Amino acid sequence: MKVLVINSGSSSLKYQLYEMTKEIMLIKGRIERIGSETAIITVERYGRDETRLTQEILHHSEAVRAMLKLLTHKEYGVLDNISEIKAVGHRIVHGGEWFRSATLMNADVEQKIRQLYDLAPLHNPAHMIGIQAVTGHMPDVPQVAVFDTAFHQSISQKAYLYPIPLSLYKKYGIRRYGFHGTSHEYVSLRAAQLLNKPIEQLKIVTCHLGNGASCSAVSGGHSIDTSMGMTPLEGLMMGTRSGDIDSAIIPFILSKEDLTINEVNSMLNKHSGLLGISGISSDVREVQQAATDGDPRAILALDMYEYRIRKYIGAYSAAMNGIDALVFTGGVGENSVSLRHNVCEQLTFLGLKLDVEKNSERTQTERFISTESSPVRILVIPTNEELLIAQKTFSLLEGTK
Amino acid sequence: MKVLVINSGSSSLKYQLYEMTKEIMLIKGRIERIGSETAIITVERYGRDETRLTQEILHHSEAVRAMLKLLTHKEYGVLDNISEIKAVGHRIVHGGEWFRSATLMNADVEQKIRQLYDLAPLHNPAHMIGIQAVTGHMPDVPQVAVFDTAFHQSISQKAYLYPIPLSLYKKYGIRRYGFHGTSHEYVSLRAAQLLNKPIEQLKIVTCHLGNGASCSAVSGGHSIDTSMGMTPLEGLMMGTRSGDIDSAIIPFILSKEDLTINEVNSMLNKHSGLLGISGISSDVREVQQAATDGDPRAILALDMYEYRIRKYIGAYSAAMNGIDALVFTGGVGENSVSLRHNVCEQLTFLGLKLDVEKNSERTQTERFISTESSPVRILVIPTNEELLIAQKTFSLLEGTK
Repeated sequence: MKVLVINSGSSSLKYQLYEMTKEIMLIKGRIERIGSETAIITVERYGRDETRLTQEILHHSEAVRAMLKLLTHKEYGVLDNISEIKAVGHRIVHGGEWFRSATLMNADVEQKIRQLYDLAPLHNPAHMIGIQAVTGHMPDVPQVAVFDTAFHQSISQKAYLYPIPLSLYKKYGIRRYGFHGTSHEYVSLRAAQLLNKPIEQLKIVTCHLGNGASCSAVSGGHSIDTSMGMTPLEGLMMGTRSGDIDSAIIPFILSKEDLTINEVNSMLNKHSGLLGISGISSDVREVQQAATDGDPRAILALDMYEYRIRKYIGAYSAAMNGIDALVFTGGVGENSVSLRHNVCEQLTFLGLKLDVEKNSERTQTERFISTESSPVRILVIPTNEELLIAQKTFSLLEGTK
Repeated sequence: MKVLVINSGSSSLKYQLYEMTKEIMLIKGRIERIGSETAIITVERYGRDETRLTQEILHHSEAVRAMLKLLTHKEYGVLDNISEIKAVGHRIVHGGEWFRSATLMNADVEQKIRQLYDLAPLHNPAHMIGIQAVTGHMPDVPQVAVFDTAFHQSISQKAYLYPIPLSLYKKYGIRRYGFHGTSHEYVSLRAAQLLNKPIEQLKIVTCHLGNGASCSAVSGGHSIDTSMGMTPLEGLMMGTRSGDIDSAIIPFILSKEDLTINEVNSMLNKHSGLLGISGISSDVREVQQAATDGDPRAILALDMYEYRIRKYIGAYSAAMNGIDALVFTGGVGENSVSLRHNVCEQLTFLGLKLDVEKNSERTQTERFISTESSPVRILVIPTNEELLIAQKTFSLLEGTK
């Protein structure tokens, strides 16, 4: 059975097609700059190089049509007929308190995704446009919504509520939702498999470090806490987001600078983090390069970035009273040897013993980077949210879950 | 040598008189409701009950005069003559980046305390009024400023900077300053003495839990991180302050409620924390009573309060790669058996073994509450900021430090 996975943004659409019998990714690609005369389409068949095309694509429906055409294209495609696609799984950022798991799309689900526009103004509307575009072209194919927040719905009240007047939770749903849930779930499941232990018995801290970044405390397979909050602004220092700050800084800045509250919010989301401190880039690789060249602000930015990860690992170890494994994932977590080294070398008290050689290996595969004798295992697991979305979509339709 | 310690608030003045040869507190008291016709003066001579008087006190100079009169009062007082007071030590909340230690007052110091009004609008102006009132009545007595922030000036850049545009630090001094420094310093010094180890070799987490609350990571006698930030709003959940939240909550609330930014700030400072969640009280004792009576919001508020302390202890253990001792102080830290129990029982991974019986003893004395075999020692140490202020004042004048 073939499952198509879609991540629809406001001006982009990413897709991956899976053959679920063997969980093989057949083809993937993305359409960018939707709404322009020079939209960019990329497509990459399993085992081949990426092909890049440019054409006018004015809206998401056209993007879906272009994608379907590519999937059946004689040269680039892998399908004889679109009808081979038996289901579509959508990544949806915000499921609020309604969705604890992947859910078959219907009018009620659609209505709820719309009601969450307030909490995910940049994402949920774009996802709905993608869902509607797919419906237009493939009206009879079941679609499944897989929510970034769902995995974190297991977090208990004491961890998801903020210490502000409780009425604000009841009235507006102000609480911790957390994000990157599909990634934290995927890597914690993989970690249990690699550790060859039932996930029910494991306490794992997962660090998803990419452009956005979050940590989760995963106990017995359930998220019990996570660093992103009501929005993705909270938690770790990120590429351009501040993460945790003294919230009194916001009124202080407003009293000093001629800025609106939206501009301050935008500053915290787009001009802070690694970029705000280094003044160089939001990209860890570029900041690391500058640090290697001796730039003091780049060195400082990385120190802060790593220090804040360490503190979260400590906090979540405390939340679970110790850990069995620490997992790094996301572009930075998977690729930055020095970051993993700097984070782990000051956490020996937790039982983490990094194997410096294994940590230095340049490979894209799942692996242990702790020593054989390390009481707590350290893993690098390339995340694969699309695969988990495909699996959940498949499972839901097969009725196996 | 006798040293007077003063903590001057906007409408109050607290005082304690010490005989420094033996570090004996001779008398203490406070004047409240300064500015009213019914100001309240309390005085308590060492070993006697508190006496309470009411009289008109319209400003701080009158308050200082009333205090000096009491100190030499035949019945309540302990001095024959005011001239026996050889120095006055003032608690000053904010010393910015200028003051790393106690400092003899002079025009330059005064100027700097004034320049920090912006960062401590509620405190520094009130302290200056107190200093001036003392100067008016005792012009020749040296005065010493002891800053709440000074102990935390040892925190490194990576921990005191926020991941926001660096220009905001340079322009406005937006950074972590931390507070309760005198208390964290006092209890960490006492902990080292009680542990009978050089403080240079110790890694201690200190939890000052009172109306305000903060944790510090104290390594080798130096604060290396602390939970309060640019303002006392950040960090732990407190009586009425939220502590850490997703700062994006502020623009979200502003978009929903007809409130000004100052009103939101006020809500986070005065109507949040234990009070905001429990809806009952900002006082841990009252919330605990309600929890004992089965009130679900009170139970939730305490769960959150304790959980957030646990996470900070974990985070600071990570910051120091393990700890040797955990110290509880402040009204709540010193008195709440259940809080200490709930915090420690889920931190055995750190090497904390609480002695349940010792923890339950109702006493006001310094003591260990960990088991004999506990790898990490747990202590309760009643804080005594006034004594440390007196000591620092004395040392500075004696030139011994």
